[in-house]
Amino acid sequence: MHTRTTPRQLPDRVNHDFAGAAAILDQAMLAHVGFCDHSQSVAQPYVIPMTYVRLGQTLYLHGAAVSRLLNSLAGGIEVCVTVTLLDGLVLSRSSFGHSMNYRSVMLFGRAEPVTDAFRKADILQRLVESLVPGRTADARAADAKELNATLLLGLPITEFSVKQRSGPPHDATKDMARDVSAPIWCGELPLRQQTLDPVIDPLLLEVGIDTPELPAYLRDYQRKV
Amino acid sequence: MHTRTTPRQLPDRVNHDFAGAAAILDQAMLAHVGFCDHSQSVAQPYVIPMTYVRLGQTLYLHGAAVSRLLNSLAGGIEVCVTVTLLDGLVLSRSSFGHSMNYRSVMLFGRAEPVTDAFRKADILQRLVESLVPGRTADARAADAKELNATLLLGLPITEFSVKQRSGPPHDATKDMARDVSAPIWCGELPLRQQTLDPVIDPLLLEVGIDTPELPAYLRDYQRKV
Repeated sequence: MHTRTTPRQLPDRVNHDFAGAAAILDQAMLAHVGFCDHSQSVAQPYVIPMTYVRLGQTLYLHGAAVSRLLNSLAGGIEVCVTVTLLDGLVLSRSSFGHSMNYRSVMLFGRAEPVTDAFRKADILQRLVESLVPGRTADARAADAKELNATLLLGLPITEFSVKQRSGPPHDATKDMARDVSAPIWCGELPLRQQTLDPVIDPLLLEVGIDTPELPAYLRDYQRKV
Repeated sequence: MHTRTTPRQLPDRVNHDFAGAAAILDQAMLAHVGFCDHSQSVAQPYVIPMTYVRLGQTLYLHGAAVSRLLNSLAGGIEVCVTVTLLDGLVLSRSSFGHSMNYRSVMLFGRAEPVTDAFRKADILQRLVESLVPGRTADARAADAKELNATLLLGLPITEFSVKQRSGPPHDATKDMARDVSAPIWCGELPLRQQTLDPVIDPLLLEVGIDTPELPAYLRDYQRKV
């Protein structure tokens, strides 16, 4: 069943747990969407960075309705969506043993356009809300023209794999022996994506009336759906 | 010449400047490597997260010599390597106008294995050094067995595009009018990948002798080649 998602290397790092995949998708913000363009004699791979929202067992991607690339996806071709969180650098006793801690989801399937205007509007609102919880209370919702200019695609989260590594390095015995004779520091340098102070649109400062306060959802920003 | 890298959408966000591409590649740590597997009747896209090092006009990828995926790349098939830095969330006056600030390189070509043992060893050392400058003075360099177990591929950085967005939202006139009557906060929420405190390998604490100090290159870690 999972031919495309069954690895031959390091199988202990791979699983097919939906809750784990969902947690990674909900924490990350960026997907790398890969597909093959068959319009040439040799199939040409493309990898496009895109944002997304996961709702239940579907991953939604969107973009401009006139986008050539997005329209080729909407045609139902095979797609591979990979989402990766880089958690740290693993510093081992040997150059060869250096590695990265990460959590990654690789998702295969065919995307289908969401055409119902009500559903489309709702999902796009939930996309904004997933990136900035609370934001849709402030921002104007999309109008009919904007909805028509947007192509929204849903990809079922059914055929996927989760790959991850965490923790300290795993070194060979001969290198561990150096811990006594000539030890070097080894371990993990953790990496996290963090927010800096919000930067207000300078045009808001030019209006000459009271500048709106930073909303609570940005003062205490946390990524969650 | 740049058919694959000439966009039809938002051309002002795209350029082919080598220095700009190199700066993005040197700051990021993770590439998403896409290719098409032709062993099926329908070409199957794969997108794999990998680390890399840029040296001059070549991007080097590596992995286990027994890796099926990496070997298919080594065969010289078309590859698309995309590297993306997410710089911030753009909060606009409308849901539709929400966006992301980012810098992305999309690189096309065919990778070739580096077979010369001396060059291979040197490039792998420079990969470690690019991720953690100073590290190769401590970590043991790869031996012949480890070099043989590693497949190193070079991809020329010749056919590429740089896509980026920065700055505040660009809103429609009707939404700007709200700044006077019912203003909402808008602007950018910057995102940065940052390091947390290094975590020592617990095995180093079990040796019972002096624990090695945190090296200077980790106390003041900065990503650079």
